[in-house]
Amino acid sequence: MSSLFDRELRVVNVGIASFADAIRQSGAHATQVEWAPPAQGDRATGAALAALVNHPRVEAANAKAFSAYSAAMPVLEGIGTARNCIPRMAGRMLLHAGPPIEWKRMCGPMQGAIVGAILYERWARGEKEARALVAGGKVRFAPCHHHDAVGPMAGIISPSMPVWIVRNSAGGNRAYSNLNEGLGKVLRFGANGPEVLARLNWMRDSLAPTLGAALKVLGPLELKPLMAQALHMGDEVHNRNAAASGLLLKRLVPAILKSGVPAAEAAAACEFIAGNDHFFLNLSMAASKAMLDAAANVPGASMVSVMCRNGVEFGIRLSGTGAKWFTAPAPVVDGLYFPGYSKADAAGDLGDSAITETAGLGGFAMAAAPAIVKFVGGTPADALGHTLAMGHITLGRNSAFTLPALNFGGTPAGIDARNVVDTGILPVINTGIAHKQAGIGQIGAGVTRAPLACFTHAIRALAQGLKE
Amino acid sequence: MSSLFDRELRVVNVGIASFADAIRQSGAHATQVEWAPPAQGDRATGAALAALVNHPRVEAANAKAFSAYSAAMPVLEGIGTARNCIPRMAGRMLLHAGPPIEWKRMCGPMQGAIVGAILYERWARGEKEARALVAGGKVRFAPCHHHDAVGPMAGIISPSMPVWIVRNSAGGNRAYSNLNEGLGKVLRFGANGPEVLARLNWMRDSLAPTLGAALKVLGPLELKPLMAQALHMGDEVHNRNAAASGLLLKRLVPAILKSGVPAAEAAAACEFIAGNDHFFLNLSMAASKAMLDAAANVPGASMVSVMCRNGVEFGIRLSGTGAKWFTAPAPVVDGLYFPGYSKADAAGDLGDSAITETAGLGGFAMAAAPAIVKFVGGTPADALGHTLAMGHITLGRNSAFTLPALNFGGTPAGIDARNVVDTGILPVINTGIAHKQAGIGQIGAGVTRAPLACFTHAIRALAQGLKE
Repeated sequence: MSSLFDRELRVVNVGIASFADAIRQSGAHATQVEWAPPAQGDRATGAALAALVNHPRVEAANAKAFSAYSAAMPVLEGIGTARNCIPRMAGRMLLHAGPPIEWKRMCGPMQGAIVGAILYERWARGEKEARALVAGGKVRFAPCHHHDAVGPMAGIISPSMPVWIVRNSAGGNRAYSNLNEGLGKVLRFGANGPEVLARLNWMRDSLAPTLGAALKVLGPLELKPLMAQALHMGDEVHNRNAAASGLLLKRLVPAILKSGVPAAEAAAACEFIAGNDHFFLNLSMAASKAMLDAAANVPGASMVSVMCRNGVEFGIRLSGTGAKWFTAPAPVVDGLYFPGYSKADAAGDLGDSAITETAGLGGFAMAAAPAIVKFVGGTPADALGHTLAMGHITLGRNSAFTLPALNFGGTPAGIDARNVVDTGILPVINTGIAHKQAGIGQIGAGVTRAPLACFTHAIRALAQGLKE
Repeated sequence: MSSLFDRELRVVNVGIASFADAIRQSGAHATQVEWAPPAQGDRATGAALAALVNHPRVEAANAKAFSAYSAAMPVLEGIGTARNCIPRMAGRMLLHAGPPIEWKRMCGPMQGAIVGAILYERWARGEKEARALVAGGKVRFAPCHHHDAVGPMAGIISPSMPVWIVRNSAGGNRAYSNLNEGLGKVLRFGANGPEVLARLNWMRDSLAPTLGAALKVLGPLELKPLMAQALHMGDEVHNRNAAASGLLLKRLVPAILKSGVPAAEAAAACEFIAGNDHFFLNLSMAASKAMLDAAANVPGASMVSVMCRNGVEFGIRLSGTGAKWFTAPAPVVDGLYFPGYSKADAAGDLGDSAITETAGLGGFAMAAAPAIVKFVGGTPADALGHTLAMGHITLGRNSAFTLPALNFGGTPAGIDARNVVDTGILPVINTGIAHKQAGIGQIGAGVTRAPLACFTHAIRALAQGLKE
C-alpha cells in the first residue's frame, strides 16, 4: 500500500467530476467516467430497478412485446366516421390527446379545441353555450388512447369527424386518427373560428368521401414501406412529413382521378393534400399506434407502449402494466420560436404524436432527417447524436426502418423503461409548440425530453406487480 | 551534415511510396505524402498548367463565369415542339447526346434510338429502310449541345418531339430537353419497338398538351428552389429524382385538374408522372444546362461548361475555349449490374446527364443522397467522400444548393480544369449503364469518372489561346 504513492498516480474517477478536478489540480492524472446513480439516487426506485434487471420474466416479456411490435404490418384500410368505427364512442363524447384530464385543468389550446368540436357537432350555438354545456357535465371526455386512437396536439376527435382506419394485418388490431387540417388556424391548436369549422365541414363532406372513394380504388395501402421510403428521403415522419405526404399523394392522385368523384372535388382534395406537408403525420401516428398496440399488455414487459401529453401532464404506459398511466408535469419546450414568441407564450408539451417516438420514429429516427434541425433547432450532428443516444435505452433496432446515415442500420426502437431509469438518458421527442392561449396556433417547434418521473413511477409499479 | 545521422531519422516522403517503405524497413520513421506530378508527368501539359495557375486573366475570367453560373435562375417556361423552339433545328435532323460522332462510330443504343426516332417521325417504314436512309446521308446528326439542348443516355431529340423549355431569367438564355419516358424499354436506351413508339406518340399527343395546359395555369416554375428542396430530401437530382419528381407532381396536379384537360387525359398524365421517379431528371438537366450556358464563352476561363458522353467518347468544353470539344474514350462503368449482366455487356459511358455534375449536382452532391448507394454502389460514407473530394477541383460552392450532411454547406461547383489536371482528382459522375446492344435497356448503374485526357487537352488549348 505504501508503495502506491511511489509511482505516478493515475486515477479513474466514476461519478462526481469535482473529485477528478481536485486530483488534476494536485498535478496527478485523472480520467473522468460520467456516471450517476439510477433514478437520481432514489433508493426505492433503485431497488425496484435492481429487481427488474436481468429478470427472466421481464426479459421474456420484452422479447415477446418487441417481436409483436416488429412484426406489425400497419395497413391503411379506409376512412370512416368516428362514431361508427372507434370502439365505445357514443353520445356526447370527445376524445383528447394525452393521459386523462378533467376540463378545468386542461390547457388553453385543448379547451379551445373542445369548444370548436362542440360547435362543429352543433351541440351548442356559441362559445358561451359550449362552455356552459361542459360545465354542466353534459360532455364526456376520454383520452384517444382509451379508444385505440391518437390525435396530434389537442387531439380532439368528435363523433362525426372522419378518421383514418389503420389495421395491423399481422395482429388484427386497429388504430384510428383524425385527418390533418394543415397549418395556421386549426382546431388542433385550439382555434375554433368560422374558417376552422368551415374547413372541418369540408373535410367531412368532401375530402373524406373523396379519399374514401380513392382508397376503394387503391385497395389496402401498406404504410410501413411508405414510411421506410420517407426515412430515405429526409423525413423522420413526426415533424417532417414532406416526403411521406408526397409519396401518399402520388398513390392517391391516380386513384382519386379513377374513382368517379366529381372533378371539382377531386381537384380540391388534391390541392389540399399537395399544400400540406404534414398531411401524412396523422397516418404515421395511427401506424405507430397500431404497431405499439400489438406490443401492449404483455405482463412483465418494461417496454414503453405509449408516450403522450395533454399540455399539462406527460403520460406513459408500459406493455407490462397494461392500461395504467404514469404521469409527470409536461415540460415546456426549449425550441425555435417563431418571430414574436418565446417560451413564456408556450403551452406545456402537447399531443399524442410522441407515439411516433415510442415506435422508433420522430426524434429516434432524426439521423434520417438532418434538414429538420432548421425547424426544431440544433445541427445535423445533433440529429445523428439523438438517434445514437436512443440506442442506449431501446430493446433493439427496427430493421424495416433503415437509416442511410447510419449505414442502413435500423432505427432504435422499443424503449425499455429500465434503461431510461438506469442511464438517465431521456427519450427525445421532436414536437410542435402551441401557444398557451386557445386559437393562436403553432408558435414554434423543438426537441424535448420525456420526464424521468414517468419512468421511475412505471418501474416501481412494474416491480411491485412482479412481486404480487 | 554528418551530424544528421546521429539523431533519430524522421523522413517526409513526397510521391512514390516505395521510397518511404524502404526507409521504414530500415527501422526509421517515414511519413508519406501522396502526390503525383500534374498530368501524370506530361511535360507539355505541366508547362501549360504552370502558365495558367494564378494567371490574372484566368482568375478574372473564372470569377466572371462562376458568378454567372451562380446567379442563373432556371425557370420552366413551358413545353414546345422541338422543331418550333430549338434553334437551327430543321428538316431531317436528329440531335444526340455527347460530343459530335458520325453514324458508323455510334454505339448500339444510340443507333437503335436513331432508328426509333426515324420510325417515330415516319421518315421510314421499318428498321431496314431507316438504316438505308441514314446510310444514304439523308439524316443530319448534331450534338444536343450544339442546339442549347441536353438529352439523357442516347439523348435523341427529333423534330416533332415535345421538349421542356427552361429559361435562365437572370441571363435570358434558354435550354431544352426531351421528356422522360420512364424505365424499361425506352428510346433513350436504344429500344424502338411498337410499345416505345406508342408511348412516344402518346407523350406528343396527350402528355405534352396536358402539361402545357397545366403550365399555363401554373405560370413560370422556378426550378432552383425545387431542386434545393429535393437535395434536402435525399436526391442528388441526377440518378435519384424521387423527391424532385414528387415535388413537381405536387405542383402540377392541381394545375392539371384546373386546366380543363379531359379527365381521362388528366388521369393518364398524373399516373404516368406518379409512376416515374426519374421524371424530373430531364428538367434537372435542362436547368443545369441553362445555368452553365450562362457561364459559357468567357475568354480565358478554365471553368468546365459541359461534360457529356456519346457512348464512344467523353467530351468536355471549357468556358474559355467556347465551342471546342476536348474528347477521350468513354469509360465503361464499374457499377452495380442488374442480375444476369456484367461489365462485358455494357456500352461506354453515355448521355448528356453529366451536365448535372458539371453544375455541382449528381455525384458532386452525393452527400445529399446517401440512399443512392443502394443503386450505384459504395457506402453512405463514400457518398459523403465524393462530395468532399470534388471540393478540391471546383471554383466554389453553390449557396443555393445546400447539403444537410455538410452542415448546410453548398455543393462544390464550377469544375476548374486546372485543378483536375493538377491534383489528378477526376470529376465523379453517377450514371445509369446501357446495354451495348440497342433496345435491351438499362443493365445497371454506378459511379464513374471523367477521363483525365479531356482536361489535359483542354488545359493545353486554353494555354495556347492565352499566348495568341
